[in-house]
Amino acid sequence: MKQAGCPLCESAGGDLVFEDAAFRVIRTDEGGFPAFYRVVWNEHVPELSDLAPADRALCMEAVVCVERALRTHAQPARINLAALGNLVPHLHWHVIARFEWDSHFPAPVWAPARREAPAAQVAHVAALRPLLQADMARQLCTLAAASHAG
Amino acid sequence: MKQAGCPLCESAGGDLVFEDAAFRVIRTDEGGFPAFYRVVWNEHVPELSDLAPADRALCMEAVVCVERALRTHAQPARINLAALGNLVPHLHWHVIARFEWDSHFPAPVWAPARREAPAAQVAHVAALRPLLQADMARQLCTLAAASHAG
Repeated sequence: MKQAGCPLCESAGGDLVFEDAAFRVIRTDEGGFPAFYRVVWNEHVPELSDLAPADRALCMEAVVCVERALRTHAQPARINLAALGNLVPHLHWHVIARFEWDSHFPAPVWAPARREAPAAQVAHVAALRPLLQADMARQLCTLAAASHAG
Repeated sequence: MKQAGCPLCESAGGDLVFEDAAFRVIRTDEGGFPAFYRVVWNEHVPELSDLAPADRALCMEAVVCVERALRTHAQPARINLAALGNLVPHLHWHVIARFEWDSHFPAPVWAPARREAPAAQVAHVAALRPLLQADMARQLCTLAAASHAG
């Protein structure tokens, strides 16, 4: 059921990396964070606890697929995971590769910036995205297929 | 295995609400956020994807127990979930009840404050904690027992 006026019901919300019936993964272009993805649950539900147990597990395993592809290909210092939704109460997970050189590290991306992200490093990670996203989509596809079979 | 110098290996990290072999739930006293909890995985692992699938599921279901108790008893505007660990790379989930009157809403708690949280509202939510935490512990106990049985 789509919710009128909800930006995640009315559009993909970013560059689509993978889409299945239950969820999709998008890349979002937040300046200085070259590997910032979101796992969006397609149905308009506000909180993780609104999902049935099997759907919660699928949603979190999708988050883990994104995290794993980021760790393998971009070798970040950390992965940040967050489901906030204070402005858009439609369940979506931020999955963000964090680097020691990024504009906010070690602060959360929502805190004030500490420095300018170096363009060369941002470009280096951005160049990894085609391979990274192909691997991410492959893992997500396997996950989605297993969820259909189960 | 404990990691020397890690604050979540060397201490509980807050007021203990529930502890099992694999994880614990603590309440943290962050000014103006009267219902701010953390689910801490007891073993020192940095990221969610470092856990085995069954452990990931247990960890996330513990997060959901905390979320559910917060929603039932405190009726917040939103629940915020986050695993960041930029400063303490030991897997822990922030589970935060957010209210429209809180100091940062609708911004994340890591953004600059927008107002002072009204003391009466903070005190009202704080007064709900005994019952809320008893229910939270009961749910977590059931979850932990099922994980031992399974």
